[in-house]
Amino acid sequence: MMQFKKVTIIGVGLIGGSIGLAIKKRVPAVEVTGVFRRPSTLRKALKYKAIDKGTMSLAEGVRDADLIVLAAPVHTIVATAREAIKHAKKGVVITDAGSTKAWIVGKIEKVLSGNSSIRFVGSHPMAGSEHAGVEFARKDLLDGAPCIVTKTANTNKRALERVIDFWKALGAKVIILSPSGHDRSVSLVSHLPHIVAFGLAGAVPSKQLVYAAEGYKDTTRVASSDPELWADIFLTNRKEIAKACREFERYYKAILKSISGNDYRGTVRLLKAAKSNRDKLVYAK
Amino acid sequence: MMQFKKVTIIGVGLIGGSIGLAIKKRVPAVEVTGVFRRPSTLRKALKYKAIDKGTMSLAEGVRDADLIVLAAPVHTIVATAREAIKHAKKGVVITDAGSTKAWIVGKIEKVLSGNSSIRFVGSHPMAGSEHAGVEFARKDLLDGAPCIVTKTANTNKRALERVIDFWKALGAKVIILSPSGHDRSVSLVSHLPHIVAFGLAGAVPSKQLVYAAEGYKDTTRVASSDPELWADIFLTNRKEIAKACREFERYYKAILKSISGNDYRGTVRLLKAAKSNRDKLVYAK
Repeated sequence: MMQFKKVTIIGVGLIGGSIGLAIKKRVPAVEVTGVFRRPSTLRKALKYKAIDKGTMSLAEGVRDADLIVLAAPVHTIVATAREAIKHAKKGVVITDAGSTKAWIVGKIEKVLSGNSSIRFVGSHPMAGSEHAGVEFARKDLLDGAPCIVTKTANTNKRALERVIDFWKALGAKVIILSPSGHDRSVSLVSHLPHIVAFGLAGAVPSKQLVYAAEGYKDTTRVASSDPELWADIFLTNRKEIAKACREFERYYKAILKSISGNDYRGTVRLLKAAKSNRDKLVYAK
Repeated sequence: MMQFKKVTIIGVGLIGGSIGLAIKKRVPAVEVTGVFRRPSTLRKALKYKAIDKGTMSLAEGVRDADLIVLAAPVHTIVATAREAIKHAKKGVVITDAGSTKAWIVGKIEKVLSGNSSIRFVGSHPMAGSEHAGVEFARKDLLDGAPCIVTKTANTNKRALERVIDFWKALGAKVIILSPSGHDRSVSLVSHLPHIVAFGLAGAVPSKQLVYAAEGYKDTTRVASSDPELWADIFLTNRKEIAKACREFERYYKAILKSISGNDYRGTVRLLKAAKSNRDKLVYAK
Protein backbone atom coordinates (compact mmCIF):
# COMPACT_ATOMS: atom_id res chain seq x y z
CA MET A 1 0.00 0.00 0.00
CA MET A 2 1.22 3.46 -0.91
CA GLN A 3 2.22 5.32 2.27
CA PHE A 4 3.02 8.70 0.77
CA LYS A 5 0.51 11.56 0.53
CA LYS A 6 2.57 14.02 -1.49
CA VAL A 7 4.90 12.86 -4.25
CA THR A 8 7.21 15.20 -6.15
CA ILE A 9 8.66 14.05 -9.46
CA ILE A 10 11.74 15.87 -10.70
CA GLY A 11 11.95 15.43 -14.47
CA VAL A 12 8.59 14.58 -16.01
CA GLY A 13 9.51 12.84 -19.26
CA LEU A 14 8.61 9.35 -20.45
CA ILE A 15 9.37 7.66 -17.10
CA GLY A 16 8.53 10.53 -14.73
CA GLY A 17 5.32 11.16 -16.67
CA SER A 18 4.34 7.49 -16.59
CA ILE A 19 4.91 7.44 -12.82
CA GLY A 20 2.64 10.47 -12.47
CA LEU A 21 -0.07 8.95 -14.66
CA ALA A 22 0.10 5.64 -12.77
CA ILE A 23 -0.24 7.39 -9.40
CA LYS A 24 -3.24 9.41 -10.63
CA LYS A 25 -4.87 6.24 -11.97
CA ARG A 26 -4.20 3.91 -9.03
CA VAL A 27 -4.05 6.19 -5.94
CA PRO A 28 -5.76 9.39 -7.07
CA ALA A 29 -5.77 10.85 -3.53
CA VAL A 30 -1.99 11.26 -3.66
CA GLU A 31 -0.93 14.74 -4.75
CA VAL A 32 1.63 14.76 -7.54
CA THR A 33 3.91 17.76 -8.06
CA GLY A 34 6.25 18.03 -11.03
CA VAL A 35 9.50 20.01 -11.10
CA PHE A 36 10.58 21.29 -14.54
CA ARG A 37 13.41 23.09 -16.24
CA ARG A 38 11.28 24.33 -19.16
CA PRO A 39 7.82 25.97 -19.09
CA SER A 40 6.88 24.13 -22.30
CA THR A 41 7.38 20.73 -20.62
CA LEU A 42 5.43 21.89 -17.58
CA ARG A 43 2.49 22.86 -19.81
CA LYS A 44 2.65 19.51 -21.63
CA ALA A 45 2.70 17.51 -18.37
CA LEU A 46 -0.38 19.40 -17.15
CA LYS A 47 -2.12 18.86 -20.49
CA TYR A 48 -1.48 15.09 -20.33
CA LYS A 49 -2.60 15.09 -16.64
CA ALA A 50 0.66 13.45 -15.51
CA ILE A 51 0.82 15.85 -12.51
CA ASP A 52 -1.56 17.87 -10.32
CA LYS A 53 0.68 20.91 -10.28
CA GLY A 54 4.03 21.95 -11.62
CA THR A 55 6.78 24.39 -10.76
CA MET A 56 10.09 25.60 -12.18
CA SER A 57 11.46 26.00 -8.64
CA LEU A 58 13.02 22.87 -7.20
CA ALA A 59 13.00 24.38 -3.70
CA GLU A 60 9.28 25.04 -3.87
CA GLY A 61 8.51 21.71 -5.53
CA VAL A 62 10.15 19.51 -2.90
CA ARG A 63 9.24 21.50 0.23
CA ASP A 64 6.09 19.55 1.22
CA ALA A 65 6.93 16.20 -0.39
CA ASP A 66 6.86 12.89 1.53
CA LEU A 67 8.50 11.20 -1.43
CA ILE A 68 10.79 12.75 -4.01
CA VAL A 69 11.36 10.79 -7.24
CA LEU A 70 14.45 11.83 -9.20
CA ALA A 71 13.51 11.03 -12.81
CA ALA A 72 15.92 13.38 -14.54
CA PRO A 73 18.78 12.21 -16.84
CA VAL A 74 21.36 10.02 -15.06
CA HIS A 75 24.22 12.53 -15.01
CA THR A 76 22.05 15.23 -13.40
CA ILE A 77 20.56 12.98 -10.69
CA VAL A 78 23.31 13.46 -8.08
CA ALA A 79 23.35 17.25 -8.43
CA THR A 80 19.55 17.30 -8.35
CA ALA A 81 19.54 15.14 -5.21
CA ARG A 82 21.98 17.54 -3.55
CA GLU A 83 19.63 20.47 -4.26
CA ALA A 84 16.53 18.55 -3.21
CA ILE A 85 18.14 17.53 0.11
CA LYS A 86 18.75 21.22 0.95
CA HIS A 87 15.07 22.09 0.64
CA ALA A 88 13.24 18.89 1.62
CA LYS A 89 11.45 18.45 4.93
CA LYS A 90 12.58 16.06 7.67
CA GLY A 91 11.45 12.46 7.24
CA VAL A 92 11.28 12.69 3.48
CA VAL A 93 12.18 9.63 1.41
CA ILE A 94 14.07 10.14 -1.84
CA THR A 95 14.29 7.61 -4.64
CA ASP A 96 15.29 7.80 -8.30
CA ALA A 97 14.58 6.16 -11.64
CA GLY A 98 18.11 6.13 -13.02
CA SER A 99 19.37 3.32 -15.24
CA THR A 100 22.68 2.88 -13.41
CA LYS A 101 22.88 2.41 -9.68
CA ALA A 102 26.36 2.00 -8.15
CA TRP A 103 27.45 5.49 -9.24
CA ILE A 104 24.19 7.24 -8.26
CA VAL A 105 23.63 5.41 -4.96
CA GLY A 106 27.29 5.77 -3.92
CA LYS A 107 27.32 9.54 -4.55
CA ILE A 108 23.95 10.27 -2.90
CA GLU A 109 24.73 8.13 0.17
CA LYS A 110 27.93 10.17 0.53
CA VAL A 111 25.96 13.43 0.40
CA LEU A 112 23.61 12.07 3.07
CA SER A 113 26.22 10.54 5.38
CA GLY A 114 25.58 11.79 8.91
CA ASN A 115 22.07 12.95 7.95
CA SER A 116 19.46 10.69 9.57
CA SER A 117 16.36 12.76 8.79
CA ILE A 118 16.41 12.19 5.02
CA ARG A 119 16.50 8.68 3.53
CA PHE A 120 17.56 7.63 0.06
CA VAL A 121 16.74 4.33 -1.63
CA GLY A 122 17.85 3.74 -5.24
CA SER A 123 15.36 2.46 -7.80
CA HIS A 124 15.30 1.53 -11.45
CA PRO A 125 11.89 0.91 -13.00
CA MET A 126 12.80 -1.12 -16.09
CA ALA A 127 10.30 0.21 -18.54
CA GLY A 128 10.54 2.60 -21.40
CA SER A 129 10.62 2.73 -25.12
CA GLU A 130 12.73 4.27 -27.85
CA HIS A 131 10.70 7.48 -27.43
CA ALA A 132 11.38 10.35 -25.04
CA GLY A 133 9.09 12.96 -23.52
CA VAL A 134 5.91 13.12 -21.48
CA GLU A 135 3.82 12.82 -24.67
CA PHE A 136 4.86 9.13 -24.80
CA ALA A 137 4.15 8.51 -21.08
CA ARG A 138 1.55 5.82 -20.37
CA LYS A 139 -0.37 5.06 -17.19
CA ASP A 140 0.32 1.33 -17.70
CA LEU A 141 4.02 1.59 -18.60
CA LEU A 142 5.07 0.23 -15.19
CA ASP A 143 2.35 -2.41 -15.11
CA GLY A 144 4.10 -5.76 -14.74
CA ALA A 145 7.50 -4.17 -15.44
CA PRO A 146 10.46 -5.26 -13.32
CA CYS A 147 11.58 -2.53 -10.91
CA ILE A 148 14.91 -3.00 -9.18
CA VAL A 149 15.22 -1.40 -5.74
CA THR A 150 18.73 -1.29 -4.28
CA LYS A 151 19.80 -2.19 -0.76
CA THR A 152 23.16 -1.30 0.77
CA ALA A 153 24.71 -1.32 4.25
CA ASN A 154 23.41 2.26 4.63
CA THR A 155 19.83 1.61 3.53
CA ASN A 156 17.16 2.39 6.11
CA LYS A 157 14.81 -0.61 6.37
CA ARG A 158 11.67 1.41 6.90
CA ALA A 159 12.41 3.64 3.90
CA LEU A 160 13.23 0.56 1.79
CA GLU A 161 9.84 -0.97 2.62
CA ARG A 162 8.03 2.26 1.80
CA VAL A 163 9.78 2.58 -1.57
CA ILE A 164 9.00 -1.06 -2.38
CA ASP A 165 5.33 -0.46 -1.51
CA PHE A 166 5.36 2.62 -3.74
CA TRP A 167 6.48 0.74 -6.85
CA LYS A 168 4.16 -2.18 -6.09
CA ALA A 169 1.25 0.23 -5.80
CA LEU A 170 2.06 1.36 -9.36
CA GLY A 171 1.95 -2.24 -10.64
CA ALA A 172 5.68 -2.95 -10.93
CA LYS A 173 7.32 -6.24 -9.94
CA VAL A 174 9.95 -5.27 -7.37
CA ILE A 175 13.33 -7.03 -7.19
CA ILE A 176 15.88 -6.14 -4.49
CA LEU A 177 19.54 -6.07 -5.55
CA SER A 178 22.81 -4.44 -4.51
CA PRO A 179 23.72 -1.45 -6.71
CA SER A 180 26.57 -3.42 -8.31
CA GLY A 181 24.35 -6.49 -8.81
CA HIS A 182 21.91 -4.19 -10.58
CA ASP A 183 24.62 -2.70 -12.78
CA ARG A 184 25.86 -6.16 -13.78
CA SER A 185 22.33 -7.33 -14.69
CA VAL A 186 21.34 -4.28 -16.69
CA SER A 187 24.68 -4.20 -18.47
CA LEU A 188 23.72 -7.61 -19.88
CA VAL A 189 19.99 -7.31 -20.54
CA SER A 190 19.76 -3.61 -21.41
CA HIS A 191 23.02 -1.70 -22.00
CA LEU A 192 24.67 -4.40 -24.14
CA PRO A 193 21.62 -4.87 -26.44
CA HIS A 194 21.46 -1.08 -26.87
CA ILE A 195 25.15 -0.83 -27.80
CA VAL A 196 24.79 -3.71 -30.26
CA ALA A 197 21.67 -2.15 -31.79
CA PHE A 198 23.42 1.22 -32.17
CA GLY A 199 26.38 -0.63 -33.69
CA LEU A 200 24.15 -2.36 -36.24
CA ALA A 201 22.22 0.77 -37.14
CA GLY A 202 25.46 2.71 -37.52
CA ALA A 203 27.15 0.08 -39.67
CA VAL A 204 24.44 -0.66 -42.22
CA PRO A 205 24.52 2.02 -44.96
CA SER A 206 21.13 3.68 -45.27
CA LYS A 207 20.91 2.90 -49.01
CA GLN A 208 20.65 -0.78 -47.98
CA LEU A 209 17.53 -0.14 -45.89
CA VAL A 210 15.22 -0.69 -48.85
CA TYR A 211 15.97 -4.41 -48.37
CA ALA A 212 15.35 -4.38 -44.63
CA ALA A 213 12.59 -6.63 -43.31
CA GLU A 214 11.23 -7.27 -39.81
CA GLY A 215 14.46 -8.88 -38.54
CA TYR A 216 16.53 -5.75 -39.05
CA LYS A 217 13.70 -3.56 -37.81
CA ASP A 218 13.33 -5.36 -34.48
CA THR A 219 17.03 -5.88 -33.87
CA THR A 220 17.74 -2.16 -34.29
CA ARG A 221 14.55 -0.67 -32.81
CA VAL A 222 16.25 0.65 -29.66
CA ALA A 223 18.85 2.46 -31.80
CA SER A 224 16.12 5.07 -32.26
CA SER A 225 16.49 5.90 -28.56
CA ASP A 226 17.74 9.25 -27.27
CA PRO A 227 21.54 9.43 -27.87
CA GLU A 228 22.23 11.81 -24.97
CA LEU A 229 20.22 9.80 -22.48
CA TRP A 230 22.01 6.61 -23.47
CA ALA A 231 25.51 8.06 -23.67
CA ASP A 232 24.82 9.20 -20.14
CA ILE A 233 23.77 5.73 -18.99
CA PHE A 234 26.66 3.98 -20.76
CA LEU A 235 29.30 6.31 -19.30
CA THR A 236 28.12 5.75 -15.73
CA ASN A 237 28.32 1.95 -16.07
CA ARG A 238 31.56 1.56 -18.01
CA LYS A 239 33.13 -1.30 -16.07
CA GLU A 240 30.16 -3.65 -16.21
CA ILE A 241 29.49 -2.75 -19.84
CA ALA A 242 33.05 -3.70 -20.80
CA LYS A 243 32.53 -7.10 -19.13
CA ALA A 244 29.12 -7.69 -20.73
CA CYS A 245 30.51 -6.78 -24.16
CA ARG A 246 33.34 -9.28 -23.76
CA GLU A 247 30.78 -12.00 -23.03
CA PHE A 248 28.80 -11.05 -26.13
CA GLU A 249 31.91 -10.95 -28.30
CA ARG A 250 32.96 -14.41 -27.15
CA TYR A 251 29.67 -15.96 -28.31
CA TYR A 252 29.35 -13.86 -31.45
CA LYS A 253 32.90 -14.73 -32.51
CA ALA A 254 32.35 -18.43 -31.88
CA ILE A 255 29.36 -18.29 -34.26
CA LEU A 256 31.39 -16.38 -36.87
CA LYS A 257 34.26 -18.85 -36.59
CA SER A 258 32.02 -21.83 -37.21
CA ILE A 259 30.42 -20.04 -40.18
CA SER A 260 33.74 -19.09 -41.76
CA GLY A 261 34.98 -22.66 -41.16
CA ASN A 262 31.90 -23.96 -43.03
CA ASP A 263 31.09 -25.98 -39.89
CA TYR A 264 27.37 -26.75 -40.18
CA ARG A 265 27.05 -28.83 -37.01
CA GLY A 266 29.07 -26.39 -34.91
CA THR A 267 26.97 -23.46 -36.16
CA VAL A 268 23.70 -25.28 -35.46
CA ARG A 269 24.89 -26.16 -31.95
CA LEU A 270 25.66 -22.50 -31.11
CA LEU A 271 22.42 -21.20 -32.64
CA LYS A 272 20.40 -23.86 -30.80
CA ALA A 273 21.90 -22.92 -27.42
CA ALA A 274 21.15 -19.25 -28.13
CA LYS A 275 17.59 -20.03 -29.25
CA SER A 276 17.01 -22.12 -26.14
CA ASN A 277 18.03 -19.13 -23.95
CA ARG A 278 15.82 -16.77 -25.91
CA ASP A 279 12.84 -19.12 -25.88
CA LYS A 280 12.92 -19.15 -22.07
CA LEU A 281 12.02 -15.48 -22.20
CA VAL A 282 8.99 -16.15 -24.39
CA TYR A 283 7.61 -18.69 -21.95
CA ALA A 284 8.59 -16.67 -18.86
CA LYS A 285 6.33 -13.75 -19.82
CA MET B 1 -0.44 -9.87 -64.21
CA MET B 2 0.18 -13.49 -63.35
CA GLN B 3 0.90 -15.44 -66.55
CA PHE B 4 1.09 -18.92 -65.07
CA LYS B 5 -1.86 -21.32 -64.91
CA LYS B 6 -0.28 -24.12 -62.89
CA VAL B 7 2.18 -23.39 -60.10
CA THR B 8 4.04 -26.11 -58.20
CA ILE B 9 5.61 -25.25 -54.85
CA ILE B 10 8.34 -27.59 -53.59
CA GLY B 11 8.55 -27.22 -49.82
CA VAL B 12 5.35 -25.84 -48.30
CA GLY B 13 6.51 -24.32 -45.01
CA LEU B 14 6.20 -20.74 -43.79
CA ILE B 15 7.26 -19.17 -47.10
CA GLY B 16 5.99 -21.83 -49.53
CA GLY B 17 2.69 -21.94 -47.64
CA SER B 18 2.34 -18.15 -47.67
CA ILE B 19 2.97 -18.15 -51.44
CA GLY B 20 0.22 -20.76 -51.86
CA LEU B 21 -2.23 -18.83 -49.68
CA ALA B 22 -1.47 -15.58 -51.54
CA ILE B 23 -2.06 -17.22 -54.93
CA LYS B 24 -5.36 -18.72 -53.76
CA LYS B 25 -6.45 -15.34 -52.43
CA ARG B 26 -5.37 -13.12 -55.31
CA VAL B 27 -5.55 -15.35 -58.42
CA PRO B 28 -7.80 -18.25 -57.36
CA ALA B 29 -7.99 -19.65 -60.93
CA VAL B 30 -4.32 -20.67 -60.74
CA GLU B 31 -3.89 -24.28 -59.70
CA VAL B 32 -1.40 -24.76 -56.86
CA THR B 33 0.34 -28.11 -56.36
CA GLY B 34 2.56 -28.82 -53.36
CA VAL B 35 5.44 -31.30 -53.28
CA PHE B 36 6.24 -32.78 -49.87
CA ARG B 37 8.70 -35.05 -48.14
CA ARG B 38 6.37 -35.95 -45.29
CA PRO B 39 2.68 -36.98 -45.42
CA SER B 40 2.00 -35.05 -42.19
CA THR B 41 3.09 -31.76 -43.80
CA LEU B 42 1.01 -32.55 -46.90
CA ARG B 43 -2.08 -33.03 -44.71
CA LYS B 44 -1.38 -29.78 -42.84
CA ALA B 45 -0.97 -27.79 -46.08
CA LEU B 46 -4.30 -29.12 -47.37
CA LYS B 47 -5.97 -28.34 -44.04
CA TYR B 48 -4.71 -24.72 -44.14
CA LYS B 49 -5.76 -24.48 -47.84
CA ALA B 50 -2.26 -23.41 -48.89
CA ILE B 51 -2.45 -25.76 -51.93
CA ASP B 52 -5.11 -27.32 -54.19
CA LYS B 53 -3.41 -30.71 -54.25
CA GLY B 54 -0.29 -32.30 -52.87
CA THR B 55 2.04 -35.16 -53.72
CA MET B 56 5.07 -36.91 -52.29
CA SER B 57 6.41 -37.50 -55.80
CA LEU B 58 8.49 -34.66 -57.18
CA ALA B 59 8.27 -36.11 -60.72
CA GLU B 60 4.49 -36.13 -60.59
CA GLY B 61 4.25 -32.74 -58.88
CA VAL B 62 6.28 -30.81 -61.45
CA ARG B 63 5.11 -32.58 -64.63
CA ASP B 64 2.35 -30.14 -65.65
CA ALA B 65 3.67 -26.98 -63.98
CA ASP B 66 4.19 -23.67 -65.85
CA LEU B 67 6.06 -22.32 -62.84
CA ILE B 68 8.01 -24.26 -60.24
CA VAL B 69 8.84 -22.47 -56.98
CA LEU B 70 11.69 -24.02 -54.99
CA ALA B 71 10.84 -23.11 -51.40
CA ALA B 72 12.81 -25.85 -49.64
CA PRO B 73 15.79 -25.20 -47.29
CA VAL B 74 18.71 -23.45 -49.01
CA HIS B 75 21.14 -26.40 -49.07
CA THR B 76 18.56 -28.68 -50.74
CA ILE B 77 17.51 -26.20 -53.45
CA VAL B 78 20.17 -27.08 -56.01
CA ALA B 79 19.58 -30.85 -55.73
CA THR B 80 15.83 -30.27 -55.86
CA ALA B 81 16.22 -28.09 -58.97
CA ARG B 82 18.25 -30.85 -60.63
CA GLU B 83 15.44 -33.35 -59.98
CA ALA B 84 12.72 -30.93 -61.08
CA ILE B 85 14.53 -30.17 -64.35
CA LYS B 86 14.53 -33.88 -65.23
CA HIS B 87 10.75 -34.14 -64.99
CA ALA B 88 9.49 -30.67 -65.93
CA LYS B 89 7.86 -29.90 -69.27
CA LYS B 90 9.41 -27.71 -71.97
CA GLY B 91 8.87 -23.97 -71.52
CA VAL B 92 8.61 -24.20 -67.74
CA VAL B 93 9.97 -21.36 -65.62
CA ILE B 94 11.70 -22.22 -62.35
CA THR B 95 12.30 -19.80 -59.51
CA ASP B 96 13.21 -20.19 -55.84
CA ALA B 97 12.72 -18.49 -52.50
CA GLY B 98 16.18 -19.05 -51.04
CA SER B 99 17.88 -16.52 -48.78
CA THR B 100 21.24 -16.61 -50.56
CA LYS B 101 21.56 -16.17 -54.28
CA ALA B 102 25.09 -16.32 -55.77
CA TRP B 103 25.56 -19.95 -54.71
CA ILE B 104 22.08 -21.12 -55.75
CA VAL B 105 21.89 -19.19 -59.04
CA GLY B 106 25.43 -20.15 -60.04
CA LYS B 107 24.82 -23.84 -59.45
CA ILE B 108 21.43 -24.00 -61.16
CA GLU B 109 22.60 -22.00 -64.19
CA LYS B 110 25.41 -24.53 -64.55
CA VAL B 111 22.92 -27.41 -64.49
CA LEU B 112 20.86 -25.65 -67.17
CA SER B 113 23.74 -24.55 -69.43
CA GLY B 114 22.95 -25.63 -72.98
CA ASN B 115 19.29 -26.22 -72.07
CA SER B 116 17.11 -23.55 -73.70
CA SER B 117 13.70 -25.05 -73.00
CA ILE B 118 13.78 -24.55 -69.21
CA ARG B 119 14.42 -21.13 -67.67
CA PHE B 120 15.60 -20.30 -64.16
CA VAL B 121 15.30 -16.92 -62.42
CA GLY B 122 16.45 -16.59 -58.81
CA SER B 123 14.15 -14.93 -56.25
CA HIS B 124 14.22 -14.03 -52.59
CA PRO B 125 10.92 -12.88 -51.09
CA MET B 126 12.12 -11.06 -47.96
CA ALA B 127 9.39 -11.97 -45.55
CA GLY B 128 9.21 -14.39 -42.71
CA SER B 129 9.21 -14.57 -38.98
CA GLU B 130 11.01 -16.46 -36.24
CA HIS B 131 8.49 -19.28 -36.73
CA ALA B 132 8.71 -22.21 -39.14
CA GLY B 133 6.02 -24.39 -40.75
CA VAL B 134 2.88 -24.01 -42.84
CA GLU B 135 0.84 -23.42 -39.68
CA PHE B 136 2.46 -19.96 -39.48
CA ALA B 137 1.92 -19.18 -43.19
CA ARG B 138 -0.20 -16.08 -43.91
CA LYS B 139 -1.91 -15.00 -47.12
CA ASP B 140 -0.62 -11.44 -46.53
CA LEU B 141 2.98 -12.32 -45.58
CA LEU B 142 4.28 -11.11 -48.96
CA ASP B 143 2.04 -8.05 -49.05
CA GLY B 144 4.35 -5.04 -49.36
CA ALA B 145 7.41 -7.17 -48.63
CA PRO B 146 10.55 -6.57 -50.70
CA CYS B 147 11.22 -9.43 -53.14
CA ILE B 148 14.61 -9.49 -54.82
CA VAL B 149 14.69 -11.07 -58.27
CA THR B 150 18.16 -11.76 -59.70
CA LYS B 151 19.43 -11.02 -63.19
CA THR B 152 22.62 -12.43 -64.69
CA ALA B 153 24.19 -12.64 -68.16
CA ASN B 154 22.32 -15.94 -68.60
CA THR B 155 18.90 -14.71 -67.52
CA ASN B 156 16.16 -15.00 -70.15
CA LYS B 157 14.35 -11.66 -70.39
CA ARG B 158 10.92 -13.11 -70.98
CA ALA B 159 11.25 -15.48 -68.02
CA LEU B 160 12.54 -12.60 -65.85
CA GLU B 161 9.45 -10.52 -66.70
CA ARG B 162 7.11 -13.39 -65.94
CA VAL B 163 8.74 -14.04 -62.56
CA ILE B 164 8.57 -10.33 -61.71
CA ASP B 165 4.86 -10.31 -62.63
CA PHE B 166 4.34 -13.39 -60.45
CA TRP B 167 5.72 -11.73 -57.29
CA LYS B 168 3.93 -8.46 -58.04
CA ALA B 169 0.66 -10.35 -58.40
CA LEU B 170 1.21 -11.64 -54.84
CA GLY B 171 1.67 -8.10 -53.53
CA ALA B 172 5.48 -8.02 -53.17
CA LYS B 173 7.66 -5.04 -54.11
CA VAL B 174 10.12 -6.39 -56.67
CA ILE B 175 13.75 -5.23 -56.78
CA ILE B 176 16.16 -6.52 -59.46
CA LEU B 177 19.74 -7.21 -58.37
CA SER B 178 22.70 -9.34 -59.38
CA PRO B 179 23.08 -12.47 -57.20
CA SER B 180 26.19 -11.02 -55.55
CA GLY B 181 24.50 -7.63 -55.05
CA HIS B 182 21.68 -9.50 -53.33
CA ASP B 183 24.08 -11.43 -51.10
CA ARG B 184 25.85 -8.25 -50.08
CA SER B 185 22.57 -6.50 -49.19
CA VAL B 186 21.04 -9.37 -47.21
CA SER B 187 24.33 -10.01 -45.41
CA LEU B 188 23.94 -6.48 -44.00
CA VAL B 189 20.19 -6.17 -43.37
CA SER B 190 19.35 -9.77 -42.53
CA HIS B 191 22.23 -12.20 -41.89
CA LEU B 192 24.28 -9.82 -39.75
CA PRO B 193 21.34 -8.85 -37.47
CA HIS B 194 20.54 -12.54 -37.04
CA ILE B 195 24.12 -13.41 -36.08
CA VAL B 196 24.23 -10.53 -33.62
CA ALA B 197 20.87 -11.53 -32.12
CA PHE B 198 22.04 -15.15 -31.74
CA GLY B 199 25.26 -13.82 -30.18
CA LEU B 200 23.33 -11.75 -27.64
CA ALA B 201 20.89 -14.51 -26.77
CA GLY B 202 23.75 -16.97 -26.37
CA ALA B 203 25.84 -14.64 -24.20
CA VAL B 204 23.28 -13.45 -21.66
CA PRO B 205 22.87 -16.09 -18.91
CA SER B 206 19.26 -17.18 -18.63
CA LYS B 207 19.13 -16.34 -14.90
CA GLN B 208 19.49 -12.68 -15.92
CA LEU B 209 16.34 -12.80 -18.05
CA VAL B 210 14.14 -11.86 -15.11
CA TYR B 211 15.48 -8.33 -15.60
CA ALA B 212 14.90 -8.27 -19.35
CA ALA B 213 12.56 -5.60 -20.69
CA GLU B 214 11.36 -4.76 -24.21
CA GLY B 215 14.82 -3.71 -25.45
CA TYR B 216 16.33 -7.14 -24.90
CA LYS B 217 13.20 -8.84 -26.16
CA ASP B 218 13.16 -7.00 -29.51
CA THR B 219 16.90 -7.09 -30.08
CA THR B 220 16.99 -10.88 -29.66
CA ARG B 221 13.62 -11.83 -31.17
CA VAL B 222 15.09 -13.41 -34.31
CA ALA B 223 17.34 -15.62 -32.16
CA SER B 224 14.21 -17.76 -31.73
CA SER B 225 14.46 -18.63 -35.44
CA ASP B 226 15.14 -22.15 -36.74
CA PRO B 227 18.86 -22.94 -36.10
CA GLU B 228 19.18 -25.39 -39.01
CA LEU B 229 17.53 -23.08 -41.52
CA TRP B 230 19.84 -20.21 -40.50
CA ALA B 231 23.04 -22.25 -40.26
CA ASP B 232 22.22 -23.25 -43.81
CA ILE B 233 21.75 -19.64 -44.96
CA PHE B 234 24.88 -18.41 -43.14
CA LEU B 235 27.11 -21.13 -44.59
CA THR B 236 26.08 -20.38 -48.17
CA ASN B 237 26.90 -16.66 -47.80
CA ARG B 238 30.15 -16.84 -45.83
CA LYS B 239 32.18 -14.27 -47.75
CA GLU B 240 29.64 -11.46 -47.62
CA ILE B 241 28.80 -12.24 -44.00
CA ALA B 242 32.46 -11.90 -43.02
CA LYS B 243 32.53 -8.45 -44.67
CA ALA B 244 29.26 -7.31 -43.09
CA CYS B 245 30.45 -8.44 -39.67
CA ARG B 246 33.66 -6.46 -40.03
CA GLU B 247 31.59 -3.34 -40.78
CA PHE B 248 29.45 -3.96 -37.72
CA GLU B 249 32.50 -4.57 -35.50
CA ARG B 250 34.11 -1.33 -36.66
CA TYR B 251 31.11 0.75 -35.52
CA TYR B 252 30.42 -1.28 -32.39
CA LYS B 253 34.06 -1.01 -31.29
CA ALA B 254 34.13 2.72 -31.93
CA ILE B 255 31.14 3.09 -29.58
CA LEU B 256 32.80 0.89 -26.95
CA LYS B 257 36.03 2.84 -27.22
CA SER B 258 34.32 6.16 -26.63
CA ILE B 259 32.43 4.68 -23.67
CA SER B 260 35.53 3.18 -22.06
CA GLY B 261 37.35 6.48 -22.65
CA ASN B 262 34.51 8.30 -20.82
CA ASP B 263 34.07 10.42 -23.96
CA TYR B 264 30.53 11.79 -23.71
CA ARG B 265 30.60 13.89 -26.89
CA GLY B 266 32.19 11.12 -28.96
CA THR B 267 29.63 8.60 -27.72
CA VAL B 268 26.72 10.95 -28.45
CA ARG B 269 28.06 11.60 -31.95
CA LEU B 270 28.22 7.87 -32.78
CA LEU B 271 24.81 7.13 -31.28
CA LYS B 272 23.28 10.08 -33.15
CA ALA B 273 24.60 8.89 -36.51
CA ALA B 274 23.25 5.39 -35.79
CA LYS B 275 19.87 6.77 -34.71
CA SER B 276 19.65 8.91 -37.81
CA ASN B 277 20.18 5.80 -39.99
CA ARG B 278 17.58 3.82 -38.05
CA ASP B 279 15.04 6.65 -38.11
CA LYS B 280 15.16 6.66 -41.92
CA LEU B 281 13.66 3.19 -41.80
CA VAL B 282 10.78 4.36 -39.63
CA TYR B 283 9.84 7.07 -42.06
CA ALA B 284 10.48 4.93 -45.15
CA LYS B 285 7.78 2.40 -44.21
